[in-house]
Amino acid sequence: MSARDKVAELMAQYRAGFSLPGPLYYDGDLFDFEMKAIFGTQWLFACNECEVKEPGDYLTLELGRNSIIIVRDDNGEVQAFHNTCRHRGSRICQEHKGTVGRLVCPYHQWTYDLDGTLLSATQMPDDFDPRRYSLKPVHAANVAGLIYICLAENPPDLDHFKRTVTPYIAPHQPARTKVAFESVLIEKANWKLVIENNRECYHCAGNHPELLVSLVEAALPSDTRTHWFSELMKRKAGEWDALGLPHRPADGGIEFRCIRLPFNEGVTSMTMDGKPACKKLVGDLTERDLGSVRMFHVPNNWNHFLSDHIIHFRVLPRGPMETEVRTTWLVHEDAIEGWDYDVQRLAEVWQITNQQDQHLAEQNFLGVQSDAYEPGPYSPAGEFMILDFNRWYMSTMAEHLPPGAPGLRVAAE
Amino acid sequence: MSARDKVAELMAQYRAGFSLPGPLYYDGDLFDFEMKAIFGTQWLFACNECEVKEPGDYLTLELGRNSIIIVRDDNGEVQAFHNTCRHRGSRICQEHKGTVGRLVCPYHQWTYDLDGTLLSATQMPDDFDPRRYSLKPVHAANVAGLIYICLAENPPDLDHFKRTVTPYIAPHQPARTKVAFESVLIEKANWKLVIENNRECYHCAGNHPELLVSLVEAALPSDTRTHWFSELMKRKAGEWDALGLPHRPADGGIEFRCIRLPFNEGVTSMTMDGKPACKKLVGDLTERDLGSVRMFHVPNNWNHFLSDHIIHFRVLPRGPMETEVRTTWLVHEDAIEGWDYDVQRLAEVWQITNQQDQHLAEQNFLGVQSDAYEPGPYSPAGEFMILDFNRWYMSTMAEHLPPGAPGLRVAAE
Amino acid sequence: MSARDKVAELMAQYRAGFSLPGPLYYDGDLFDFEMKAIFGTQWLFACNECEVKEPGDYLTLELGRNSIIIVRDDNGEVQAFHNTCRHRGSRICQEHKGTVGRLVCPYHQWTYDLDGTLLSATQMPDDFDPRRYSLKPVHAANVAGLIYICLAENPPDLDHFKRTVTPYIAPHQPARTKVAFESVLIEKANWKLVIENNRECYHCAGNHPELLVSLVEAALPSDTRTHWFSELMKRKAGEWDALGLPHRPADGGIEFRCIRLPFNEGVTSMTMDGKPACKKLVGDLTERDLGSVRMFHVPNNWNHFLSDHIIHFRVLPRGPMETEVRTTWLVHEDAIEGWDYDVQRLAEVWQITNQQDQHLAEQNFLGVQSDAYEPGPYSPAGEFMILDFNRWYMSTMAEHLPPGAPGLRVAAE
Ligand code: FES
Ligand code: FES
Ligand code: FES
Ligand SMILES: [Fe+3]
Ligand SMILES: [Fe+3]
Ligand SMILES: [Fe+3]
Repeated sequence: MSARDKVAELMAQYRAGFSLPGPLYYDGDLFDFEMKAIFGTQWLFACNECEVKEPGDYLTLELGRNSIIIVRDDNGEVQAFHNTCRHRGSRICQEHKGTVGRLVCPYHQWTYDLDGTLLSATQMPDDFDPRRYSLKPVHAANVAGLIYICLAENPPDLDHFKRTVTPYIAPHQPARTKVAFESVLIEKANWKLVIENNRECYHCAGNHPELLVSLVEAALPSDTRTHWFSELMKRKAGEWDALGLPHRPADGGIEFRCIRLPFNEGVTSMTMDGKPACKKLVGDLTERDLGSVRMFHVPNNWNHFLSDHIIHFRVLPRGPMETEVRTTWLVHEDAIEGWDYDVQRLAEVWQITNQQDQHLAEQNFLGVQSDAYEPGPYSPAGEFMILDFNRWYMSTMAEHLPPGAPGLRVAAE
Repeated sequence: MSARDKVAELMAQYRAGFSLPGPLYYDGDLFDFEMKAIFGTQWLFACNECEVKEPGDYLTLELGRNSIIIVRDDNGEVQAFHNTCRHRGSRICQEHKGTVGRLVCPYHQWTYDLDGTLLSATQMPDDFDPRRYSLKPVHAANVAGLIYICLAENPPDLDHFKRTVTPYIAPHQPARTKVAFESVLIEKANWKLVIENNRECYHCAGNHPELLVSLVEAALPSDTRTHWFSELMKRKAGEWDALGLPHRPADGGIEFRCIRLPFNEGVTSMTMDGKPACKKLVGDLTERDLGSVRMFHVPNNWNHFLSDHIIHFRVLPRGPMETEVRTTWLVHEDAIEGWDYDVQRLAEVWQITNQQDQHLAEQNFLGVQSDAYEPGPYSPAGEFMILDFNRWYMSTMAEHLPPGAPGLRVAAE
Repeated sequence: MSARDKVAELMAQYRAGFSLPGPLYYDGDLFDFEMKAIFGTQWLFACNECEVKEPGDYLTLELGRNSIIIVRDDNGEVQAFHNTCRHRGSRICQEHKGTVGRLVCPYHQWTYDLDGTLLSATQMPDDFDPRRYSLKPVHAANVAGLIYICLAENPPDLDHFKRTVTPYIAPHQPARTKVAFESVLIEKANWKLVIENNRECYHCAGNHPELLVSLVEAALPSDTRTHWFSELMKRKAGEWDALGLPHRPADGGIEFRCIRLPFNEGVTSMTMDGKPACKKLVGDLTERDLGSVRMFHVPNNWNHFLSDHIIHFRVLPRGPMETEVRTTWLVHEDAIEGWDYDVQRLAEVWQITNQQDQHLAEQNFLGVQSDAYEPGPYSPAGEFMILDFNRWYMSTMAEHLPPGAPGLRVAAE
């Protein structure tokens, strides 16, 4: 049985409304398929553009066995390349971040311009044509300061996303920030369980006391489960309308989600006490009590845009059993550490929350590997965003199945 | 070639009387097959019932990718369940042992009764039927205080074993003990090599000086290799008959072995000096010089029942290349540490012996992976119990081969 | 698709003059194939015979899952055996080196003579024929003191190599040395990338400042890229001819390389300052300024023979992703540490160089695993010896492909 047939059979076992069949979470062949069908085709969140502020600033990220360079070129554009030399394939940038004049391969010093062009390669014969050996480009897009990359030759449309979310996040001016703190967790869990964990707050009450100081569990303004939330939502909606800040759920379908939601009464930031994390607000904001814009984009990114800081989350699979979760906390580029903000105070809620979520995802991953595991029903009330994610996942995977494959029928449901 | 065909071919290479073909010790597909054909069908030793003394006391064990909960329910019965939540599959009990009122999944707090019934699940729709989401049960049986579990839907008969061995071990009253010490070794060896190592004392003379203070190498009362043993055996048999303690080899076929054998002259316990390990005897025993009941049950358990303590050994594969060996030393439940017994003194012989055996099994495992390894002949005198084990192993595996598979012929021989 | 078909397909993707297709560097099936087609058929460098000086002295080496014993027998011959007991397969020698009277298996004490004959096995039945259970032999050959082994039943010819290189290296009398220092690196890189790294000095200028104190990048006496080298070469050639030391490139085809080349002007040894590493010269040499004999033999060995010490490099794959590189520094057997030589000074250049090369090979290995990696062109001027190695590799692999396999055509080109 070919790997693709196997994937099609595994996918055929999926039932909408239920968690995925076990092997969809851990099978190695399925993972290889995903790396092509999902991570090889979709726009992936990479970083904030402020992380590569000046020409020559770069950072690298690793996606399975692939390494990507994000670098600002001499024209001030953010570019992305595969981090593998066109000579014999060595990694070129060997640090996670840095600043360079040119991209020089450490092995035999083949030297590339920041736009990927091969500038020099010694000891090569006269008929060697350097124009055929530029670094392999990766598409990069800038959405109000957030850099997304796409490894596909022909990336899917990003315009609808960009046009839709920009009004929500632009007031926070993500590009005019700096990284105050960064954390990288290597979770022993399949990436989809990391995403599922993020896509619901059904687990919050039992696990995230620190987060719930600020976060309201209601994921939609129309949530009527509690009276006080409806009241709060109505009041905040009025204030935000007055400020010209969009807040209603954006029309992202199953591709993305963007919404502004209030924090608990009296809370202005995601801190242990709900009080501000940074004196200086981001962008040109002057109001502190703005809740947060929550933005998610398949398959690997969610964010909080607050009045006084921004948090990006980036999920990258390292293999079927291991996932990197990178979190960056950003404040206004002119905010002064020690005066405007304290790193520990700024980052502690989500650091604790991330650790709690890591534990949950890892225990979930252990359990779904049991022979006795059987997909169980999601809560339509508490886990509807996972239903969306799974629908998106199945349909995106299905695009790479051969016509007539058993998994297609299921994905279409 | 399908995995089952491959297994059938590997099994066909087996020759009775010789150690197994190399891949039967390390092949990953064969291991997956074993997990179903052996560990998915057979009764497996789990623990002593005193380890889950009160309602709500639980322990967990891991068998390959499966985790099992052993818990005493509110009726005082020992029950076993798959440790995977019926919601999204999270592990429920995340510690090796503990005490709970109900089994509450840490992820979204689905709550199960100690009998596995789902008692509550919040945010689920009205048509959600909790009766369909009980924890998946695992069969549990109590053999004079020893808990065995079986993952099969229809477990094989355990009655013959239970009826046969109870008269041997009941006088030691295993249930009225407590764990004085526990050790867990993770051995880098296939589980079958761990069992083979245990099933012979051919290696004792060269490796176990501490054990041989007490242990007599003769495995059968009829062993006539040394005159002194015959004499000793005859005398001890008379004493045990007088006490009403059964000692002759039980009729366990290739499934189990149960026998009482004497220690070396003058030795009453498995200690470094052969002197008692615990002042208080187990059960209601009053005689100290009882040798030990040695009881083995395929595929994963052997035990020593002495006059002053009991030792259980439990073997659980973690993968084709790694095996967990758990040893528990139990004394009378009323024995007082520091007064009746000293943990160090109680456990040292088998701790050292286990380490020696771990090294032997690991070096054996390294060697059988060589391309030059060729199955060699067992000693009929020194290794006859391995011959039994292999016969059992081959025939049990063969039950899961398709009719006409090459491995069947071999297993039948 | 069978593993052999897969290998044939992977090999068919090779283009001469370009680095190998990615999977040829990391695919697990291909590696298994190599272990048979390359490491199971070829002569492999094992050690210097001085490392097993006296009868009973042994060392072990590990090649994938195989362990080999090199031992000097009672007749003073160096022998090699598979390190797996004929009883149940245990490793016999469990240390890297040692001295024994007989080869006694630690498990059940089966005892073998140093020539591999089984001398005793207790508890075996009367019809047990020990002559059928000798240790499985491995061919061993002695090339002027260097021990090569071959796991094949019918080893390829080694005579041409032996006859050709002996005049170059015999004056250094490798057998009359002792190991002054030994280093073992476990590199996270495929073994072929370790060899490729060694087969070119294109990377030296950018990475090996310490090595370039002594080493001249020119790999051939005919190298005319710099005038000073041509002049130096001409002068040294005259001196060496006068001393009767052969130096011209030996006719090793793609199987081996042997040549004497000068060091930089004024340099006599591979030290940080170019000055001697050992007062006492090797063999009966009296001249210090001899450059070094550089000798390479496929697939796993290169050496430097200097006037005052000898360096052997041995490469052994542990798996597709991991390679052991063992380096030994040898001095005259009568040289006195602290008086004639200082270990730190003797070994530091190649210790640093090895670490640099490890890093280069590892980064190369990371890069070739990228989906974006594409074989790139070798420099004909700087990397011609890799072209030779790849030609040898492809043709040797092809000998094990079925007639008509796609990889054959490519290998023949
Ligand atoms: S691999 Fe990059 S320059 Fe050679
Ligand atoms: S996974 Fe157990 S309650 Fe959700
Ligand atoms: S395995 Fe070597 S003597 Fe038994
Ligand atoms: Fe969470
Ligand atoms: Fe033992
Ligand atoms: Fe180098």
